[in-house]
Amino acid sequence: MKLSVTVTLKKDVLDPQGKVVLNTLSNLGMNELKSIRQGKYFEIDINETDEIKAVKKVDQMCQKLLVNLIIEDYKIDKL
Amino acid sequence: MKLSVTVTLKKDVLDPQGKVVLNTLSNLGMNELKSIRQGKYFEIDINETDEIKAVKKVDQMCQKLLVNLIIEDYKIDKL
Repeated sequence: MKLSVTVTLKKDVLDPQGKVVLNTLSNLGMNELKSIRQGKYFEIDINETDEIKAVKKVDQMCQKLLVNLIIEDYKIDKL
Repeated sequence: MKLSVTVTLKKDVLDPQGKVVLNTLSNLGMNELKSIRQGKYFEIDINETDEIKAVKKVDQMCQKLLVNLIIEDYKIDKL
């Protein structure tokens, strides 16, 4: 089963990387932008056919390694 | 309007970063993993209420800056 994990910075955390992308796009002439925030994305292929169990395992991976829970949020989706 | 861009490596491109994550998770005792591939994620807030126009503009941003079209694929979604 394939699942995706999307990791984003929490709303109140500064995102300097996103700011740089925003400035660069403005310099390229794209002025209609309000904000850009950058995150991480994982595609995880797991040996588990039961969706609930698969999500639970991926959730554990997020908490143990993939996500910094202090400053980041995450979302697990089925692919 | 808020759109998200998900950037992933093309199927045949090696992903050493994903490999490291996979190995680390295996070392943490998670052996049911088949593969992990890492990508990038952007949340873009754009001053444009028309969805088709907004997607077109974000598509331009992807082609100009956010995506390396030689080795990466991308997907634009409405948030």
